[in-house]
Amino acid sequence: MRFTIQQIAQSLGAEAAGDLELTVARASEPGDATADDLALAMSPKYADELGTGSAQAAIVWSGADWKALGLKAAIFAARPRMAMAGVTVMMDAGQGERQGIHPSAVVDPSAQIGENVSIGPLSVIGANAMIGDGSVIGPHCFVGMDARLGANAHLREMVSIGARATIGDRFRAQPGARIGSDGFSFVTPEVSGVENARKSMGDTGDAKAQSWLRIHSLGAVEIGDDVEIGANSTIDNGTIRNTVIGSGTKLDNLVHVGHNSRIGRDCLLCGQVGLSGSVNIGNNTVLGGQVGVADNLFVGDGVVAAGATKILSNVPAGRVMMGYPAVKMETHTDIYKAQRRLPRILRDVDALKKAVSKLTSSD
Amino acid sequence: MRFTIQQIAQSLGAEAAGDLELTVARASEPGDATADDLALAMSPKYADELGTGSAQAAIVWSGADWKALGLKAAIFAARPRMAMAGVTVMMDAGQGERQGIHPSAVVDPSAQIGENVSIGPLSVIGANAMIGDGSVIGPHCFVGMDARLGANAHLREMVSIGARATIGDRFRAQPGARIGSDGFSFVTPEVSGVENARKSMGDTGDAKAQSWLRIHSLGAVEIGDDVEIGANSTIDNGTIRNTVIGSGTKLDNLVHVGHNSRIGRDCLLCGQVGLSGSVNIGNNTVLGGQVGVADNLFVGDGVVAAGATKILSNVPAGRVMMGYPAVKMETHTDIYKAQRRLPRILRDVDALKKAVSKLTSSD
Amino acid sequence: MRFTIQQIAQSLGAEAAGDLELTVARASEPGDATADDLALAMSPKYADELGTGSAQAAIVWSGADWKALGLKAAIFAARPRMAMAGVTVMMDAGQGERQGIHPSAVVDPSAQIGENVSIGPLSVIGANAMIGDGSVIGPHCFVGMDARLGANAHLREMVSIGARATIGDRFRAQPGARIGSDGFSFVTPEVSGVENARKSMGDTGDAKAQSWLRIHSLGAVEIGDDVEIGANSTIDNGTIRNTVIGSGTKLDNLVHVGHNSRIGRDCLLCGQVGLSGSVNIGNNTVLGGQVGVADNLFVGDGVVAAGATKILSNVPAGRVMMGYPAVKMETHTDIYKAQRRLPRILRDVDALKKAVSKLTSSD
Repeated sequence: MRFTIQQIAQSLGAEAAGDLELTVARASEPGDATADDLALAMSPKYADELGTGSAQAAIVWSGADWKALGLKAAIFAARPRMAMAGVTVMMDAGQGERQGIHPSAVVDPSAQIGENVSIGPLSVIGANAMIGDGSVIGPHCFVGMDARLGANAHLREMVSIGARATIGDRFRAQPGARIGSDGFSFVTPEVSGVENARKSMGDTGDAKAQSWLRIHSLGAVEIGDDVEIGANSTIDNGTIRNTVIGSGTKLDNLVHVGHNSRIGRDCLLCGQVGLSGSVNIGNNTVLGGQVGVADNLFVGDGVVAAGATKILSNVPAGRVMMGYPAVKMETHTDIYKAQRRLPRILRDVDALKKAVSKLTSSD
Repeated sequence: MRFTIQQIAQSLGAEAAGDLELTVARASEPGDATADDLALAMSPKYADELGTGSAQAAIVWSGADWKALGLKAAIFAARPRMAMAGVTVMMDAGQGERQGIHPSAVVDPSAQIGENVSIGPLSVIGANAMIGDGSVIGPHCFVGMDARLGANAHLREMVSIGARATIGDRFRAQPGARIGSDGFSFVTPEVSGVENARKSMGDTGDAKAQSWLRIHSLGAVEIGDDVEIGANSTIDNGTIRNTVIGSGTKLDNLVHVGHNSRIGRDCLLCGQVGLSGSVNIGNNTVLGGQVGVADNLFVGDGVVAAGATKILSNVPAGRVMMGYPAVKMETHTDIYKAQRRLPRILRDVDALKKAVSKLTSSD
Repeated sequence: MRFTIQQIAQSLGAEAAGDLELTVARASEPGDATADDLALAMSPKYADELGTGSAQAAIVWSGADWKALGLKAAIFAARPRMAMAGVTVMMDAGQGERQGIHPSAVVDPSAQIGENVSIGPLSVIGANAMIGDGSVIGPHCFVGMDARLGANAHLREMVSIGARATIGDRFRAQPGARIGSDGFSFVTPEVSGVENARKSMGDTGDAKAQSWLRIHSLGAVEIGDDVEIGANSTIDNGTIRNTVIGSGTKLDNLVHVGHNSRIGRDCLLCGQVGLSGSVNIGNNTVLGGQVGVADNLFVGDGVVAAGATKILSNVPAGRVMMGYPAVKMETHTDIYKAQRRLPRILRDVDALKKAVSKLTSSD
């Protein structure tokens, strides 16, 4: 499929110049571009690369002198990554899913399948499950009993959705995403060592060795509209109430969301983030890769946690956090600088002690 | 399905009061409860919520004035989470698995399937595998050649169990759990940079660039009774001996257990814990979320490691650990407090140096 | 299958002594060995264990007095782990995969399947996918549209490979490995709080709450020869160019490789390592378990990062790193020692302040 420069510019709501009827088949980096490609050169640093590639058309920075760059046509990007969003959605070649229900899929007769739904080979749809109109269920997927999936969902291969999950429109799930695993919740008949340690901040006390009894998950998972869940991420069912993920929130790969957690709207949780149980995250919050949040904590709206931050206490709205345990980023920077000077400080303190001791004795 | 208050109280071994023939259909949080629900209000902090909901029956704290709370019936919980275990196991509506072997499952003729076993759609059971009586194998599962699964196992969807794994009774595995992946074990023909760095604590020496040769896993995975493995967790095969998980131990989601590791009885490994190779964990030990344990280490009985602790040396029994590298929690608290005071200390030391220098010169 | 001592010694290129026609069926640890086993006793510390087991043959350390150890035959290992590689590849009993294409597999008629390929039950091969000669595709696998897999691949169960991935020869993937999930890349229409926080190092500024637009992945995953990907690991597609993994590189379980990252040759990435987007890793680099690398960073050739290191800035070739944020291991050791002395230093500084204050006032 080919697109004219005009079509692309219109779709981006961007200005264009030159031969607007020129067509391109793919997007590419400036240095790799052929005459069939739209080069993505949204900043002056790509000017040289454009010269080594063979692009005739490119998306360039605002005010670029496109003729001097050797182009026949150019689109001007005010906000480069927004242009990326527009171009990539147009040119996505997809995964090759086919219309209709593959004959090898196992669909329970009681399931309610919407209009124009595609169900891939060897997928399983459980009893009374509902799949919204226009949804694409990839190969090897599982949608459990009584689960409800909204319109225009797109599940990649091997996604599983447990019983009673409710999911809004335009849901996306990457390969191996797990919705609705049971919560990790166990109890010992008598007080355990870990309970003592949490209470005393460090002492397991005289708790005796005991086995764990399972607390089952009666709740499910409840997901808003426009949510994306990454590859091999896991979202646990709630114990009594549901685990909740708000509309517009996106989770990267290998993210763990423990039971009863509630995530607000339009958050980003990057790769390998872990939320233990009953965590409450506000709206528009961004957790960097490998961030961890301890159980029963509150993280406010608009918080940003840098990669690998370990949040061990509540975080008010708007704060930028870093470190283990998490502190404000500026505090972390101060501590870190001090830490690197520490070995020298130790020597200074030793020297001071000697000097003062000498002064004192000579006093 | 409905339960009388009497049935529930008996099952919990708990005292009850009021209309013991009253029936409930579900458990719920006090504020959300309808007249059909058993409200879970095991602490006085839920008293107000009970008022906003419509529960007629509740599990309440010992000594609660249930009539004043507006209830018709009450069950008294001495240990709230124990009551949760009892109630949730009664009321778990399950995943809708059906009796018998689904016609789409691929079961090797040599496999030995016990009595009353359920095998879900599109599952694969390998040659000579044994599935114990009463086990429920979910959809899209794989049980490998010569694997042995005890009685009353419950595998959720997309669980895989590699060849020769041996697993006890009442095993539970959450979606995507992987038992019996190959261990991560490689060697270079000559000494490698990483070997040098480990020996010298920081110098890769003059090792030359080499490719890695694979050490295959001849061992398997050996799991006791009453073990649970979380969603998308991975348990590697041992190299020569087996990787071992003791009875009663529970693993949360996305946990990694490296080859040759041995975990004792009744441990909890929370979300995203990682054990590298040949780790030895005692009994009744609890590792919080995102804890890591370096290879070949010993972590004793009853140890508690707080979330995100990175264990880089052996830990004696009973210790409560925190930090990276892990230290005793009280040491960590001291270090952490000192760290936060560090920027001020630096200023103090600078001031002291000036003062002492002045004193010395004036001396 | 049984092997003579002669066969094993020849395969290892190692010297042997005693009854070279003696046969063994398995490898085992010295203490567990039966008369049918080859005991692996490559260091003098295993001498006693050999006595408690019943091995007649063993691999022993160079110069071992095998007769005194009670053996009838011995093989001498100059580099023990190299001997492990040789023995385990000979004795690996495999996963029981069968020749040919299982009738339950769903293979697109346009797929090109090489000679002597095995495709397990319930696997799906997409349109125009190519599978190289001698490859073994396990049960429940998915190979997407236009994906190319080289010769002699070995996929364990439930591996997925997305559309357009290109993979070299002798590829190995453990259960649940995910190749070609979409990259995690989103943009807000206007500048977001997280963009502000990154620029200001700590302040989200006055960005307003916005929703995220998706940047689709037009690139794919490109993998060299002799690569292994661990269980439930995830490799994202690139945005415009491909995500690249060089020949000879091995990834452990639950590793996350973000979009556009490039990993060189012969690297090891241990369990739960996370690379965020556009990370550039050199050749022969080893990242320990739970290491994280922030986006757009460069990590040079031959770097070694200890377990749980969090790399937040570029790392030159050959460096050994540790800590969060990562520093040279020797710096980390110095900081760590100083940190443990910190609480005492604080007391010293307080004492010094008093002493100096006294001296100053008495001055």
